[in-house]
Amino acid sequence: MKRSKRNFGIVTSLLVIPLILSACSSEAVEENDVVRADANKTEVIGAHESLIQEPVAPEVERDGSDVYIQMTAQITDVEIANTYNYKAWTFNGEAPGPVIVVNEGDTIRFTLENLDPSIPHSMDFHAVHTAPNKGFADVAPNEEGTFVFPANSPGVFMYHCGTDPVLSHIANGMHGVIIVQPAEGYPTDAEIDQEFVIIQNEWYRYNDLEDMTNGEPSQVVFSTKALHDGQVNTNGTVGGLIDRPLEAKAGEKIRFYVANMGPNEYSSFHVIGTVFDDVYIDGSPFNHYKGMQTVGLPASGGAVAEFTLTDEGEYKFVTHHFNHV
Amino acid sequence: MKRSKRNFGIVTSLLVIPLILSACSSEAVEENDVVRADANKTEVIGAHESLIQEPVAPEVERDGSDVYIQMTAQITDVEIANTYNYKAWTFNGEAPGPVIVVNEGDTIRFTLENLDPSIPHSMDFHAVHTAPNKGFADVAPNEEGTFVFPANSPGVFMYHCGTDPVLSHIANGMHGVIIVQPAEGYPTDAEIDQEFVIIQNEWYRYNDLEDMTNGEPSQVVFSTKALHDGQVNTNGTVGGLIDRPLEAKAGEKIRFYVANMGPNEYSSFHVIGTVFDDVYIDGSPFNHYKGMQTVGLPASGGAVAEFTLTDEGEYKFVTHHFNHV
Amino acid sequence: MKRSKRNFGIVTSLLVIPLILSACSSEAVEENDVVRADANKTEVIGAHESLIQEPVAPEVERDGSDVYIQMTAQITDVEIANTYNYKAWTFNGEAPGPVIVVNEGDTIRFTLENLDPSIPHSMDFHAVHTAPNKGFADVAPNEEGTFVFPANSPGVFMYHCGTDPVLSHIANGMHGVIIVQPAEGYPTDAEIDQEFVIIQNEWYRYNDLEDMTNGEPSQVVFSTKALHDGQVNTNGTVGGLIDRPLEAKAGEKIRFYVANMGPNEYSSFHVIGTVFDDVYIDGSPFNHYKGMQTVGLPASGGAVAEFTLTDEGEYKFVTHHFNHV
Repeated sequence: MKRSKRNFGIVTSLLVIPLILSACSSEAVEENDVVRADANKTEVIGAHESLIQEPVAPEVERDGSDVYIQMTAQITDVEIANTYNYKAWTFNGEAPGPVIVVNEGDTIRFTLENLDPSIPHSMDFHAVHTAPNKGFADVAPNEEGTFVFPANSPGVFMYHCGTDPVLSHIANGMHGVIIVQPAEGYPTDAEIDQEFVIIQNEWYRYNDLEDMTNGEPSQVVFSTKALHDGQVNTNGTVGGLIDRPLEAKAGEKIRFYVANMGPNEYSSFHVIGTVFDDVYIDGSPFNHYKGMQTVGLPASGGAVAEFTLTDEGEYKFVTHHFNHV
Repeated sequence: MKRSKRNFGIVTSLLVIPLILSACSSEAVEENDVVRADANKTEVIGAHESLIQEPVAPEVERDGSDVYIQMTAQITDVEIANTYNYKAWTFNGEAPGPVIVVNEGDTIRFTLENLDPSIPHSMDFHAVHTAPNKGFADVAPNEEGTFVFPANSPGVFMYHCGTDPVLSHIANGMHGVIIVQPAEGYPTDAEIDQEFVIIQNEWYRYNDLEDMTNGEPSQVVFSTKALHDGQVNTNGTVGGLIDRPLEAKAGEKIRFYVANMGPNEYSSFHVIGTVFDDVYIDGSPFNHYKGMQTVGLPASGGAVAEFTLTDEGEYKFVTHHFNHV
Repeated sequence: MKRSKRNFGIVTSLLVIPLILSACSSEAVEENDVVRADANKTEVIGAHESLIQEPVAPEVERDGSDVYIQMTAQITDVEIANTYNYKAWTFNGEAPGPVIVVNEGDTIRFTLENLDPSIPHSMDFHAVHTAPNKGFADVAPNEEGTFVFPANSPGVFMYHCGTDPVLSHIANGMHGVIIVQPAEGYPTDAEIDQEFVIIQNEWYRYNDLEDMTNGEPSQVVFSTKALHDGQVNTNGTVGGLIDRPLEAKAGEKIRFYVANMGPNEYSSFHVIGTVFDDVYIDGSPFNHYKGMQTVGLPASGGAVAEFTLTDEGEYKFVTHHFNHV
């Protein structure tokens, strides 16, 4: 399968199998979320207090093997698990940020526009080789920085803001997924009917470095992201959030590009009612597993995980560390 | 090795190597177990209060590639780590439940008889493909439900009650292991002299969803289960609990089918004094590792782990997350 | 690559890429470390109170495939993360202990000299096959014990004191790494320019078994150890601690022998600004991965992890469970 050659339309068959997105929240703290959000309003950084920066679509343009990517760092209210808005530190107004897709062998020519008026931000792509003090350097408030990276390792990689304290920048929302498509594809490409991006991350009490450090998340959530035209129903761009159940036909083989942003928790990724036929750890075609019930994802780990839905019905995916469901 | 062709007798050699079962409990809470058990008696669901349902052996009958399995959901007092009885929610009166063994390609024709007078239960086999809202549907109190599943993925899989809240049903005892034997076997089958099932799970304060959610187990324990006639010494059935040290002769190669039920903790499975010669992650022959000191098992992860005992003596197995030992 | 044939000199090129050792500490507790250290002075075992045993270099002598290794168990003050001295229980006065390197097929003839006047200690090598009650038997205070082990599994293995309570002995400092070099080498040996040993472990409040059991470390730290002459700058022996940034030339391929001592925490090992080209789980050449952003290491897990630095600059390595950074 070369993605560029595949033709994804909206699935309209009557034999619909909705995959229900398991919007997870840690029950013990759920009831206090609103209270906590209120109680913590004072912890919002002053310059962010009344700031609502509308999401900005990322710009991605290809010129041969040069891919020009422009993204923003910005402060945007993000709805978490239908409970409350979190004044997130984001890439492009989304948390997790937009999904970026490039090809193995591409050169990424990346510009970060920092719209945050008060804090420096940066971009750390796990997919690339660079000296972090240069390629992942801070971009000052209201400035922009341009960086060039080779993307030579195929896989499913985390990206995140690398500015100190990194834990705060990640936990406040500055993370996402970059997919580097393997030049020679995956052995199972021809079998795949649909594909999505699934991202796990934790949220903490607002900007509460103590909770973040102690590993006491208020929520552990999954987000589903579109990869192709026709999959998207929120902001109309490829890479946008999908906030309704995924749909598939019986017998279809589904591919998830899955990644665990952490920042702290291990993920035991499992789809209820199925077994993963094929798994590629960190998304490298070389790291091929078969027949897995659960994909273990360390914080900042990724995978390609493929499965076939044999029966019509509703499926959920979860982390089988069940206190995080 | 085809299991059906192998002939296991009781090991009577003088060159005995007992594998001591490391019955683990978290030390910090151990001393309070009895007190807590008393203090929490009031949390037992009313209808369970005076209920003691004797264990019922599961029924397994084969007709060609159709395997008819009948199991019960029932409330039975289970002894945990020699400290106290836990009024467990169980399959067949055991926690972990009975080990189920089928062959790759079998069709499982499964009946769950729910003997619990007050709560619905269900069965979620990680080994199968099914729409969970149908195949893993709730069975009402005092009713029974029949479900049909293909078992097409070889491996060592968790099963558990999938009724909401799943965390409570698993943590209260409703979990176990189903082994799907690979059609073509494992590359190392011919080398194996003995095999057992090892299961790790956590116990919490009685039905305490807050402790369960916060991941504060009162005990992390291993159970050893028999796979063959002659291995069993508690209830006389294959799949029953083995409560004495395992025995082997020097030079024998031992296979453990090992699985981590969680519901929350990661397991670093290690046998003191040896290295695993061969490991198959989630029990698929395709996922072959060699020379591992420790098998990392996410919650709901499984493995086949094989090792050779070179010297006579006592061996223990542990999770090397040592606060759970 | 046969290590004995390789010629490592001190890197003096101008194109220097320092790898900055990320000396990690959990921020929430950092500020109280000194206070705690004082407050806990009373918990030091009486006989250890005024004891300061100077580090003793391990003795390693080869006679054909017999390797004679002599190590000590001793009480020595160890500086943790520049904050305070911990009256550690150690092997040879270091924590982590000295790196031991043998070849696949060697016979280890090991002597432990227990210099601790009050507590028995022992040695549990994860690299070997032995009956633990014999090979890993306790050595009484002021005595020594000799044990013989075959080293037949290539890899990167933990060693630790196996005396009860094991958690205390590990958490108080008695752990280290033994490398068993594969007879046939790694497929990537010819590509490697430099190699180091990286060890992660946790520290707890002094000898506080409750904190240890509850998994509340005061610090999670990395140590870098030398493998070759010319790499060492603290105590002048191969296997000694390296306390300055590692240096490499642009384009060099670096190999880390990495291991997670725990005793409790999972490690998500990642080098910022690069992707691991090749990874061998637990250091077995058979367990080969490519293109990994993060190597998941269970407590007591190891790996060989190789990467290429393409640009001059500063690199850090971290566990991407960011609350432990």
